[in-house]
Amino acid sequence: MTGADLPHRILLGPGPSNCHPSVLQAMSRPMIGHLDPEFLKIMDETQALLRQVMKTSNRLTLPVSGTGSAGMETCLCNLVEPGDRVLVCVNGVFGTRMADIVERLRGELHTVQAEWGTAFEPEAVARAVSEVRPKLVAIVHAETSTGVLQPIEDISRIVHEAGALLLVDAVTSLGGAPVETDKWQVDALYSGTQKCLSCPPGLAPVTFGERAVAALDARKSRVTSWYLDMAMVRKYWGSERTYHHTAPISMIFALNQALKLVVAEGLEARFARHRLNQRALVAGIEAMGLSMLVKEAYRAPMLNAVRIPEGADDRAVRAALLQEHDIEIGGGLGPLAGKIWRVGLMGESSARENVVALLSALEKILKAQGVRVRRGAAKAAEAVY
Amino acid sequence: MTGADLPHRILLGPGPSNCHPSVLQAMSRPMIGHLDPEFLKIMDETQALLRQVMKTSNRLTLPVSGTGSAGMETCLCNLVEPGDRVLVCVNGVFGTRMADIVERLRGELHTVQAEWGTAFEPEAVARAVSEVRPKLVAIVHAETSTGVLQPIEDISRIVHEAGALLLVDAVTSLGGAPVETDKWQVDALYSGTQKCLSCPPGLAPVTFGERAVAALDARKSRVTSWYLDMAMVRKYWGSERTYHHTAPISMIFALNQALKLVVAEGLEARFARHRLNQRALVAGIEAMGLSMLVKEAYRAPMLNAVRIPEGADDRAVRAALLQEHDIEIGGGLGPLAGKIWRVGLMGESSARENVVALLSALEKILKAQGVRVRRGAAKAAEAVY
Repeated sequence: MTGADLPHRILLGPGPSNCHPSVLQAMSRPMIGHLDPEFLKIMDETQALLRQVMKTSNRLTLPVSGTGSAGMETCLCNLVEPGDRVLVCVNGVFGTRMADIVERLRGELHTVQAEWGTAFEPEAVARAVSEVRPKLVAIVHAETSTGVLQPIEDISRIVHEAGALLLVDAVTSLGGAPVETDKWQVDALYSGTQKCLSCPPGLAPVTFGERAVAALDARKSRVTSWYLDMAMVRKYWGSERTYHHTAPISMIFALNQALKLVVAEGLEARFARHRLNQRALVAGIEAMGLSMLVKEAYRAPMLNAVRIPEGADDRAVRAALLQEHDIEIGGGLGPLAGKIWRVGLMGESSARENVVALLSALEKILKAQGVRVRRGAAKAAEAVY
Repeated sequence: MTGADLPHRILLGPGPSNCHPSVLQAMSRPMIGHLDPEFLKIMDETQALLRQVMKTSNRLTLPVSGTGSAGMETCLCNLVEPGDRVLVCVNGVFGTRMADIVERLRGELHTVQAEWGTAFEPEAVARAVSEVRPKLVAIVHAETSTGVLQPIEDISRIVHEAGALLLVDAVTSLGGAPVETDKWQVDALYSGTQKCLSCPPGLAPVTFGERAVAALDARKSRVTSWYLDMAMVRKYWGSERTYHHTAPISMIFALNQALKLVVAEGLEARFARHRLNQRALVAGIEAMGLSMLVKEAYRAPMLNAVRIPEGADDRAVRAALLQEHDIEIGGGLGPLAGKIWRVGLMGESSARENVVALLSALEKILKAQGVRVRRGAAKAAEAVY
């Protein structure tokens, strides 16, 4: 079970991304207790690294013991009480998922919709906020189902002028594009480990600011989920160290190492790398004669929605990429199923050689399928560097 | 970050236990997508191994993407609807936790209590069942807070004669003592990975039998938790392979390998090893003049509650074990805090050399603290082998 029995994939889907060997190696550290003083040091260090990467001084910053969706559920189930008015901005799968969770929590759900593949105009959100007067507004930063990057600052101003809290989904953006938790005055934010942090899936970093913590403290009812109840989880991650549940120790080793790599590269350098590789990919895609779903101004640098050209067989193309080239890309979800491919260039996966390998392979496969594409995609991409 | 920077602990607490190097190594396998055909094969294989170890043919058998407590919450939040009458058997921390979760789910909570450190008499449960007429009865198999192993068969008969469902917590017992899901007619059962399976914490194996699945299918309300909603999770682990959330891939590699080791050793041989090492530990403890909390007939073979002798400083003893001998044991919880030590002999940690090392170290530390203990604990233990 050394990995020799598994293919080595180039992971260019919507996540997980490829992991640096040192991150995988970190999980081989010998097991240690979840209350061992040596492990508590690693917890403290991991929280400090998370604050650096999330650009926040929030004390209540920690990795939830579940994947990104557990982070979404943690933020919502702690901030939403039955009857609370919540406005969810929906322009893709993950906004839809937040709305679903709010209903399960018996929140009073209101949504504002934008077409999948587009971002929200601040005016549209302002109108909805003034109509609904919500306690909480929830929005996705980088919609993994469409590749849209949502500007947050104007939305934040609108939400706070109305006295509401702002919850941001940064699952796909964290570590690949600026996430300015404090500067943007985001009240609560969650992420995942397997996207631009290039750590295996299994943890969901979350952070809660002062106003959000005040809302937790002011709850009238207990949180429906025992497992995700921040009132208890925060005591284990805080100075009390009260046992709640056994932390996923090896996963925290991995996250610790992944965050060290992010900080060592430097956030600005990392963001620039993501932008550069996206520019190269888009140059290649357009050189082939294909087109992008999302307008340039709103493209998330780590998730590229490529329109499937006429005549191409979505599944057959993806299967050929995987089986013949060991390259994974994602298909479309919901209304975009069969209409787009989702090409992730996240963390370790965001690399020149991956861009070139994908473009060459895609060109070859499409031609073999009889789809008319122009030559020279890889060359066009190379020209960007 | 190779582990050279961390101490190598002998983990004899209530979990995590030590992991076999091949299990830690399995997590270093290169990352792969959660819908990759090669990963789907590993999922299928892991489910088949889980069924073998859980002694069940239940189709709906899978590892939940969270630690053991997430398994508890999964079973309860899927089986309990608001207003459902639930009887929880409480004789320790984990029964208490189940009761807490039932309340959060707005179930109608009833409890039957037994003194911590004792097991339930079937008659007591029978009386409670006939009074309450519950939809669901929940009970802990091996109570990690006390070291009691609860016989399940009689309870199961009583529960089913009353037409109720039986939920069993097998977090600590699975892989260390017989867990006969089908033979005992358990309707739903959850476990954790970091106890007798000797896999890092991070997954919660669960299994649902036919009657439990019928209850899931007959729900009138949606499950409060999106993340743990079996209606969706089962479609990813079933033949549909519908994306729900990104599975914790590396953790599933680890569980797969840990289960292979369990099966290779053989369940009966593994149970015998756990019993033998417990007998040796108890012989040593009693030779020292200390005593066990739980009567012999109800001792869980993997979790030993040792009464702290008069004059011993609980925390100082545990700190000395950790710092001077690299041995972790656990303290008591709740009403047993300061009164017992919890010595886990789970999975890889259940080994002759660990029993002897602990007894020698404990004798030395207690003597240094001026506690009167008899000599020859290690020798008494060795005599058992």
